[in-house]
Amino acid sequence: MAALPLGLGEVRDAERRLRGRIHRTPLLTCAALDRMAGRRLLFKCELLQKTGSFKMRGALNAVRSLAEERQRSGREPPRAVVTHSSGNHGQALACAAREEGIPAYIVVPRTAPRCKQDAIRAYGATLVPCDPNDKSRAETASTVVQETGGVLVHPNQELAVIAGQGTIALEVLEQAPQVNAVVVPVGGGGMVAGIAVAIKALRPDVKVFAAEPSNVDDCYQSKLRGELTPNLHPRDTIADAVKTSIGPNTWPIIRDLVDDVLTVSEEEIKRATWLVWERMKLLIEPTAGVGLAAVLSEQFQAVPWDVQNVCIVLCGGNVDLRSLTWLTDLSGKAAE
Amino acid sequence: MAALPLGLGEVRDAERRLRGRIHRTPLLTCAALDRMAGRRLLFKCELLQKTGSFKMRGALNAVRSLAEERQRSGREPPRAVVTHSSGNHGQALACAAREEGIPAYIVVPRTAPRCKQDAIRAYGATLVPCDPNDKSRAETASTVVQETGGVLVHPNQELAVIAGQGTIALEVLEQAPQVNAVVVPVGGGGMVAGIAVAIKALRPDVKVFAAEPSNVDDCYQSKLRGELTPNLHPRDTIADAVKTSIGPNTWPIIRDLVDDVLTVSEEEIKRATWLVWERMKLLIEPTAGVGLAAVLSEQFQAVPWDVQNVCIVLCGGNVDLRSLTWLTDLSGKAAE
Repeated sequence: MAALPLGLGEVRDAERRLRGRIHRTPLLTCAALDRMAGRRLLFKCELLQKTGSFKMRGALNAVRSLAEERQRSGREPPRAVVTHSSGNHGQALACAAREEGIPAYIVVPRTAPRCKQDAIRAYGATLVPCDPNDKSRAETASTVVQETGGVLVHPNQELAVIAGQGTIALEVLEQAPQVNAVVVPVGGGGMVAGIAVAIKALRPDVKVFAAEPSNVDDCYQSKLRGELTPNLHPRDTIADAVKTSIGPNTWPIIRDLVDDVLTVSEEEIKRATWLVWERMKLLIEPTAGVGLAAVLSEQFQAVPWDVQNVCIVLCGGNVDLRSLTWLTDLSGKAAE
Repeated sequence: MAALPLGLGEVRDAERRLRGRIHRTPLLTCAALDRMAGRRLLFKCELLQKTGSFKMRGALNAVRSLAEERQRSGREPPRAVVTHSSGNHGQALACAAREEGIPAYIVVPRTAPRCKQDAIRAYGATLVPCDPNDKSRAETASTVVQETGGVLVHPNQELAVIAGQGTIALEVLEQAPQVNAVVVPVGGGGMVAGIAVAIKALRPDVKVFAAEPSNVDDCYQSKLRGELTPNLHPRDTIADAVKTSIGPNTWPIIRDLVDDVLTVSEEEIKRATWLVWERMKLLIEPTAGVGLAAVLSEQFQAVPWDVQNVCIVLCGGNVDLRSLTWLTDLSGKAAE
């Protein structure tokens, strides 16, 4: 096994940097969903994290690491932090930067929903519009970095971000030492990689599963082929926060430490999201339904039954309440 | 001060009976709402309680008290429990009865939403239809009691129910000893009475506020006049779970122990509900928005500023997801 880009030490460092600055999110249970799954489910409620998603962990660890590093080497703190994400990482970086007193520039496609732009602005960040394609995003971010003297914080390949997300696992192991498996939605892979590093270092007996929409199954394909296989033409998915592909830093960790990748259909994601709303009263975004969808899917029946206590990370709750029509459309079906 | 129908001892007994059988619900915070209120808000998340509302506490305490009492006097456990509530108490009693292995009969108006009837049935209770008026409900319940040899468990005037709801206060005092006030939605008054009994016995310095929709302000009117003044012609309110009036057992407790009653408009309730959805990702029912609405209202500005740590009970989350149109209609306004 080749050396991985990240170890438990970095996750422990992140835990120290985040202490008292983020919520220790509750681990909730639901008897009705236990019955449906035939196992004991433990829901790690990262939708209740600051900024409405786990992304605050990685973003704040990255900003504080930067500041610490500069201080250690006698330099000024970073002039700014920059990223290109109109989603949860954009909000989290904006919030983390404000808490540390550092300006943040968030590159956002002109077509991004107004509510997301408003949320980023509300955290005091500067929005920089770009065209809605990868090239324009990358170029614009690069220009902003040069002009501001800032530092780019990648949403999922930045090591400090991955280490920050890994602190979820440290909390879960404390809150539920009886856990046998953790199921984590995968997009860029920052969360599942961080969690896998911590879990496999501390409790190698605990399984780590990545859960992914079939429509954007690059993580599944990469594990199948044994090589990083990004989605060149990702299809659409309601789990929009995991549309992105895993990358060079998360891939080796996923390859070596993630036990399996489970894929789920759009219908399965919608139904799971609806169930969490209705049964748990938690307003998750559809991406956070991907984990439960995997556990309720037929393929999960193949997981041995002594894997009894299964932690599912509910990763975020930043859903646009103005666009709930698909949920109400679905209600009849899911209730059956 | 005349002797009250209930004391701390009964709440402590309830705590013992409920131990390990209900969720210890989390106390969550939200920086954005703190800023809006100008105080530190502590949200007691009873929407995450079993059956989706605090009602499980009172219902389970009542069912277990009955069984204990019978056992003490060498009698059989009750043959059945009966109530007339198609709402949260009906669900809670059905669930509590199932857990204790006692049949439950829930009298429900023929016009009650199907989703509520389904929920009660899902807990294994027998639905008994009645006409949609108070007379038919009472008569039907009375007939069921006679025919089954069961015991009627009143949703808010039964003392064991009030004592059960009081356990919320014991948890809050443990979770947040720094609390200066508790704000509780009031309908029949079981929750605010139980909480007031516990709070004023243990921490008389902590304020207890009841929060009520202006449209059904019998608790406010009763306090104003110094006598029990039920709503003879209650108007409609979106906070449907508190449409009912306080009664003979809750009134003296409210009269003597509740510091003040705050009333709020329908618009204030909707806005508060929306804010909890959007900012806290918690799917509360509108009734649970009444407490936050009161704290955000102008009248709350008159509460001294050393009342800094304010606990708001989010009482339930049993909202019909199929009927969210008022929320989406409101979104534009609330976001302003």
